[in-house]
Amino acid sequence: LLANKGYEVALWARDASVAGTINSERHNPRYLTEIAINENISATSDLRKAVTDSSLAIMATPSHTIRRISREIEPVLERKAIVVSLVKGIEEKSKKRMSEVLHDELSGKIGNKIGVLSGPNHAEEVSMNIPSATVVSSLSKSVAEELQETFMTPRFRVYANPDIVGVELGGAVKNVIAIAAGISDGLGYGDNTKSSLLTRGLAEMIRLGVALGADVRTFAGLAGIGDLVVTCMSKHSRNRAAGEMFGRGMSLDQVVEEMTMVAEGIRNVKAVKALAEAHGVNMPITESVNEILYDGRNPVEFVSLLMSRDAVEEVSGMKWISK
Amino acid sequence: LLANKGYEVALWARDASVAGTINSERHNPRYLTEIAINENISATSDLRKAVTDSSLAIMATPSHTIRRISREIEPVLERKAIVVSLVKGIEEKSKKRMSEVLHDELSGKIGNKIGVLSGPNHAEEVSMNIPSATVVSSLSKSVAEELQETFMTPRFRVYANPDIVGVELGGAVKNVIAIAAGISDGLGYGDNTKSSLLTRGLAEMIRLGVALGADVRTFAGLAGIGDLVVTCMSKHSRNRAAGEMFGRGMSLDQVVEEMTMVAEGIRNVKAVKALAEAHGVNMPITESVNEILYDGRNPVEFVSLLMSRDAVEEVSGMKWISK
Repeated sequence: LLANKGYEVALWARDASVAGTINSERHNPRYLTEIAINENISATSDLRKAVTDSSLAIMATPSHTIRRISREIEPVLERKAIVVSLVKGIEEKSKKRMSEVLHDELSGKIGNKIGVLSGPNHAEEVSMNIPSATVVSSLSKSVAEELQETFMTPRFRVYANPDIVGVELGGAVKNVIAIAAGISDGLGYGDNTKSSLLTRGLAEMIRLGVALGADVRTFAGLAGIGDLVVTCMSKHSRNRAAGEMFGRGMSLDQVVEEMTMVAEGIRNVKAVKALAEAHGVNMPITESVNEILYDGRNPVEFVSLLMSRDAVEEVSGMKWISK
Repeated sequence: LLANKGYEVALWARDASVAGTINSERHNPRYLTEIAINENISATSDLRKAVTDSSLAIMATPSHTIRRISREIEPVLERKAIVVSLVKGIEEKSKKRMSEVLHDELSGKIGNKIGVLSGPNHAEEVSMNIPSATVVSSLSKSVAEELQETFMTPRFRVYANPDIVGVELGGAVKNVIAIAAGISDGLGYGDNTKSSLLTRGLAEMIRLGVALGADVRTFAGLAGIGDLVVTCMSKHSRNRAAGEMFGRGMSLDQVVEEMTMVAEGIRNVKAVKALAEAHGVNMPITESVNEILYDGRNPVEFVSLLMSRDAVEEVSGMKWISK
């Protein structure tokens, strides 16, 4: 997207042979293999080289690597650079959001020039220039505006939202709910079931978000319900696909073995659950997913959970017109 | 569902031969043809006979027929009967919700024993006992509770919600947004596009609902986002399928010709648009769908609408932490 806009992009690939193939063949041999890679992109397996002299560093690696990578790039990062995270997850040990990890490691050098980008943006479609929309956030309005201007194209619409807590939590929680949606698919249930699950999942996301200081309106937007829908319903969703395997009775080891990229929700369910417990938030879907993945709970019991909620009123505290 | 619970059900079919086939073959020859019809169901083409001596009348015909049918059953309706609407739509001429039409025609006889049921409940799945959840509402708490008890099964979970305005508007607006989602599919766009559209459609639904006195929390629930998701994403959705035909360039006449059942959204987009105008609510997706269906506007322009929204902030009025 950025190379197509004319930016010079240095792409870091861990594997030198992948970087080499990208530079010579102009195709990535592993992911989105059909997409022609713009000549403005040059790949390298040298992380520090990729970051040196860059005005913007885009973090798009798994959530558990962000702290380590931040530490590695910190010495070569320009003081005037912005760092933006596309990563949807919570760091397991610290229970911190990705932008908090970036602040820990990089704000000494770049201050608050840290942002996030999140929304219903499957790479399979963005890379084909299919119309998409997204949200950027930052503690700093001017950083968010610069990111907005950088990423905006006629087919990639970028909105700014100051609620960085909500934007990041939406991205982390939706992966867990998508695993639940996939479990429902794997059990052979239908679209009715999955929509109900998604609705209750949204309620969990909102409860956790509000407890952590997010604005409820963010969850009605692209980084909340928008991303939740695409992740629960799309054929491109790795987290939903992983859930489907669990629903068919596969174990964690079997599912991880089966996938070329680990679904973030598998890693993140623990962190989301811990965050919920630390803040006294009730997240029954998240808890069930955690038990199915890590405690060997039978996914067949999952539907009883969905169907057994005791409350007879949909929203507590609403007033009736008459008895 | 009710016959399986042991209720005696009289099913009205307009066509005497359909009623005859249901009674003799225990299958509906036109819809859900694979489903065995429970022996507790007896079909009739005599509407008044179906309603006579019934404790509950379930209205499940197209929205434009509800007033006429209400008038026809009123003389034979029991004074102690409850009438519940499963119909998702707004009456075009009066711009009234279905429960308001029922109140107009029936409250002289049955008072406020009028309710609605709405949620992500494709009949294709409910009839196969696939786990589903729904919402009942009424002006009267006791009526809602009786409906809840009547419809609840271990695989059909019924929540009560006092916000009848929100429950009914969710059902009416979602059909219009599903046509928009289908148009996006017909144009060849992706899941990213459709999720963004759905997110903006939810915002339209909420704006209209709040202007009409609904509770915003209803739209985060089963009759709001739950039903919106299933209607925009499911292969069972007639409104989405109709939209896809419009997106491929078919005219209104061609689409209506193609469908065995008219999609409610086709009829309802006019009423929803009129309701929005009457209350000064901005509903750009609804307006565009209306223009594509009734003014021959080219659907290709539709994506420019989605992508051209001027605002740079996702939610207006949120505060930034720093400049």
